[in-house]
Amino acid sequence: MAGESETSVSTESEAKRLIGTNDPYGGVIVHINEPMDPATFLSLITSSIAHWKLQGKKGVWIKLPVDRVNLVEAAVKEGFWYHHAEPDYLMLVYWIPQTPHTLPANATHRVGIGAFVINPNREVLVVQEKSGLLRGTGVWKFPTGVVDEGEDICAAAVREVKEETGVSRYYAMQLHFINLNEDSFFMFLDFLWFQIDSEFVEILAFRQSHKSFFEKSDLFFVCMMQPLSFDIQKQDQEIEAAQWMAFEEYAAQPFVQNNELLNYINDICKAKIDGQYSGFSPVPTRSFSDQKMSYLYLNGKATKRDSRG
Amino acid sequence: MAGESETSVSTESEAKRLIGTNDPYGGVIVHINEPMDPATFLSLITSSIAHWKLQGKKGVWIKLPVDRVNLVEAAVKEGFWYHHAEPDYLMLVYWIPQTPHTLPANATHRVGIGAFVINPNREVLVVQEKSGLLRGTGVWKFPTGVVDEGEDICAAAVREVKEETGVSRYYAMQLHFINLNEDSFFMFLDFLWFQIDSEFVEILAFRQSHKSFFEKSDLFFVCMMQPLSFDIQKQDQEIEAAQWMAFEEYAAQPFVQNNELLNYINDICKAKIDGQYSGFSPVPTRSFSDQKMSYLYLNGKATKRDSRG
Repeated sequence: MAGESETSVSTESEAKRLIGTNDPYGGVIVHINEPMDPATFLSLITSSIAHWKLQGKKGVWIKLPVDRVNLVEAAVKEGFWYHHAEPDYLMLVYWIPQTPHTLPANATHRVGIGAFVINPNREVLVVQEKSGLLRGTGVWKFPTGVVDEGEDICAAAVREVKEETGVSRYYAMQLHFINLNEDSFFMFLDFLWFQIDSEFVEILAFRQSHKSFFEKSDLFFVCMMQPLSFDIQKQDQEIEAAQWMAFEEYAAQPFVQNNELLNYINDICKAKIDGQYSGFSPVPTRSFSDQKMSYLYLNGKATKRDSRG
Repeated sequence: MAGESETSVSTESEAKRLIGTNDPYGGVIVHINEPMDPATFLSLITSSIAHWKLQGKKGVWIKLPVDRVNLVEAAVKEGFWYHHAEPDYLMLVYWIPQTPHTLPANATHRVGIGAFVINPNREVLVVQEKSGLLRGTGVWKFPTGVVDEGEDICAAAVREVKEETGVSRYYAMQLHFINLNEDSFFMFLDFLWFQIDSEFVEILAFRQSHKSFFEKSDLFFVCMMQPLSFDIQKQDQEIEAAQWMAFEEYAAQPFVQNNELLNYINDICKAKIDGQYSGFSPVPTRSFSDQKMSYLYLNGKATKRDSRG
């Protein structure tokens, strides 16, 4: 929202105050960097709020790094409340006007992906979970994962397919013979670790669910991916935790059959394989308010523009 | 993740420990409800972690309500870190094993909607912002808003259209004449406040952007809505902050023309008006892991199933 100020306390002689940077909504953001004791902090907060009130400021944000944890209690006692927290800091907030606050809400959703990777033999990439609810059930499922902070959905899908097939260790043995001289050969065995590289095609559907993690909600995007490597097909027998599987065989699993959501996703995937479905594909665009590049996901088949950017 | 325990301290004579509930991932969740001093809390944490370690527990979650703020420093000094925070509590977490933690990440995204409400006269519902970046620019835009925690995207779009048109106060004057007796009339003026009720049709597209709010990302869904009330059309002249506007007039605004993202959205809306576009519509389904109802958004035109549930 604004840049960090190196020092958070003014050194003017007349009145010691916290130094903040303005945000575009009439608020002030303060980063507390240097150590101080709670009494000093409290006195700085009091004089600063009086000053900002005269300036007509509204919201006051105080970002406390985890090593300034000794100041949290003082801020809360002064009327600040928790806005959000990350492992290394706590964001506290205060509203100066006598009106209800209009501060933005905290992040509410986690975002996940499921990858539908299908090869030209109509086989789908499936994995068995080593942890989680499906562990030990023998169920084969699409690779899934959580989208990292700041990561594009389409990039997360590519990463997860690679990671999940990497974790499952697709080894292929290669025997190398090196002719050392005319009579003796040196032989060595080389393990190759295959990971599936894939290209993002489309978002086929997504699901929004609530209270999936404490009070937070979840957005789960089903992504169609095109595999860029197929070597893995040769390794079917050795692999326990991941494999290519005929789509119909995947879909026939009782766990899949008995699950309404997976049934819908099956119908969608089948329609997609048969060329009867169009999802949303990403187009890089520039944003409303700034010139940052971000992805707009749209039904590219239906617009004049080329959806592949 | 688990139910709350009323008391958070064991009363067994042999060793005072915190009482937690187990989560399905080998973790323990503790809710600190009763007041205590930091020294007592520290001693409880130490003995409890030793106990949980013997039990093979992994993650330890401590939920501290804001009025237990005096205990935050003790937990952090003992090795806990911030996981997330809401106005009324702070969630701290600790990882017992010597391996890297596999705790779930915090929520990463805020979710917003923009509503494309079009009436049978090919007019689109547009508003002028009273605050924010477009305030005072004279730009007419789609109603937009933030999806609340636990709210479905399709419900948020209906709510925002109603709220934004409510905020703009569509007044219609009605003159009432009451015949008090045969000779005198009492006349009063009644203001009616129109709000647009609308029905959710489809998600036409969505955009993912990053660092929109501190480090958090943003998912913005463009929603097509069908208006259920049209009375507002009569009020065009009196309304400053919201109106029905010919779609072509909206699209011709320089702000819209010069914005790549809005240009794409225009193309999509135009294709939709002309029957040339299909977005994602919501289908209620039951979830993988539990039987909670949630919405799956899919291209209903392309699947055999009825997308309107």
